[in-house]
Amino acid sequence: MLSGLYAFPLTPLDEQQLHLGAFTQIIGRLAAAKIDGICVAGSTGSYAYLSREERALLAKLAVEAAQGIPVMVGIGANRQRDVLQHLDDAQQAGAASVLLAPLSYQPLSDSEVFGLYQAVSQASSVPVCVYINPRTTHFDFSDALLTHIASLPNIASVKFPGVAAEQREAARLAQYWRGQLPEQVSLGISGDAYAWAAIAGGFDIWYSVLAGLYPETCKVLLRSAQSESGEINKQLEPVWQLFRQHGSLRVVAAMALLAGLTPCDGLPRPLQPVAENALAEIRAVMERLQW
Amino acid sequence: MLSGLYAFPLTPLDEQQLHLGAFTQIIGRLAAAKIDGICVAGSTGSYAYLSREERALLAKLAVEAAQGIPVMVGIGANRQRDVLQHLDDAQQAGAASVLLAPLSYQPLSDSEVFGLYQAVSQASSVPVCVYINPRTTHFDFSDALLTHIASLPNIASVKFPGVAAEQREAARLAQYWRGQLPEQVSLGISGDAYAWAAIAGGFDIWYSVLAGLYPETCKVLLRSAQSESGEINKQLEPVWQLFRQHGSLRVVAAMALLAGLTPCDGLPRPLQPVAENALAEIRAVMERLQW
Repeated sequence: MLSGLYAFPLTPLDEQQLHLGAFTQIIGRLAAAKIDGICVAGSTGSYAYLSREERALLAKLAVEAAQGIPVMVGIGANRQRDVLQHLDDAQQAGAASVLLAPLSYQPLSDSEVFGLYQAVSQASSVPVCVYINPRTTHFDFSDALLTHIASLPNIASVKFPGVAAEQREAARLAQYWRGQLPEQVSLGISGDAYAWAAIAGGFDIWYSVLAGLYPETCKVLLRSAQSESGEINKQLEPVWQLFRQHGSLRVVAAMALLAGLTPCDGLPRPLQPVAENALAEIRAVMERLQW
Repeated sequence: MLSGLYAFPLTPLDEQQLHLGAFTQIIGRLAAAKIDGICVAGSTGSYAYLSREERALLAKLAVEAAQGIPVMVGIGANRQRDVLQHLDDAQQAGAASVLLAPLSYQPLSDSEVFGLYQAVSQASSVPVCVYINPRTTHFDFSDALLTHIASLPNIASVKFPGVAAEQREAARLAQYWRGQLPEQVSLGISGDAYAWAAIAGGFDIWYSVLAGLYPETCKVLLRSAQSESGEINKQLEPVWQLFRQHGSLRVVAAMALLAGLTPCDGLPRPLQPVAENALAEIRAVMERLQW
């Protein structure tokens, strides 16, 4: 079962190129931290802005640099044809699993989204994680649809968006979904601000943006949630505030630049880095946390 | 000034290939109808599902088949780098103008959307149409942002979504925007069900899905709106109903198949054709209209 801490590293890039040295350095930090998995070309890895060739290269380099830690690869695209190509590329690169959100330009029906997961389920020889992200995909899974998809072969995990801010509500959701989904499908939480409550409430896996930069901190948070100690989550609240305000991608991109881990703001245009005053806030938060 | 009737043809395709013979036949019908312009690789042309090479090829074939009628080319993409490449390709193909919606995966700020149009405005040597489509892009232009973008060099038209169902309200909007936007920027309407009211209310150009298949009918509607006769719009109401229910792309794709203009359902997966009962409804509407 997919469980524990999965980190979502940035893909350092500018308008001319990928910065592959910086990328493998970031993967190396994650490998050294011995987390449970690394997901490259996730949302934080800007997968939706990259070409097929770029995504295939990132998957290959990540598997090489991960020192045996399982690598999950994002395979989402507007078109099913492209999703299946990304799946092929990920498998050839040695991906241990893949992550799929239902991207689209035209709004999708439930039947279309089911058809997409069905096609990928059939074509995949590795576990598939169902990625729910209404903020970027504008698609809401009904409970019935998610349950239907989770019954397909190879579906191994669901990456839920952050919804329950309190442990008790998260526990209720975990119990509900444990009753709905096949037992081999792990319950995953994203939205780092919600991770503590979800893990304390019984979710199995934390799909973490922050862990892409600070895996050790996130390991501590995961353990503290498992023992229901909330101190570190309180300390990280200023980080979650920044994530809420600017989007986690823009914040970790700024952190990576400030930490000297990337040579540029790292965001694909038209995305722009945070403004100067927000950058100063981010710097202050990093100093307080001794990052 | 961009004005009159612009048709948005389908791109006939299946999971294996583009059907280029069917595509050029559809363009030929539009050329024969002597409409004011043809927009290839618009939403109805499934641009967001096509590769760079496919889009460049469609632009080239359309210019060749259009017999001198101006060809507009859709250049939208998640990443600005790709938008600028599509712009280059469109210009090299002989496009008379380009169409740009602010696509994204990460939600965009106003400043990011302005930056995108600024970059395209600077790089373009042809007129640019600002494409507002919240249903597919999930981006809402504020009045201030749209006015700011419209002041950039090369911005020639705004493609508004259908909003005003009544002529009086459309006239109020037309008057408002005429006061806000530079005089060379034409007011365009999309959402075919709203075209009659908008043109009767003073909009300059109809960006039409239906005209991609039935240009003569749409020419009649345009003229009738200009003379404020509403009869044909009432006759077409069953078509607008189908568009509202299934999305215009799925309906015109079904119509093209029924009319023998395309060899397949023509929709990029995961999009699926309408169900059998909806297909029967579409067939009945076409028979009533003698299409």
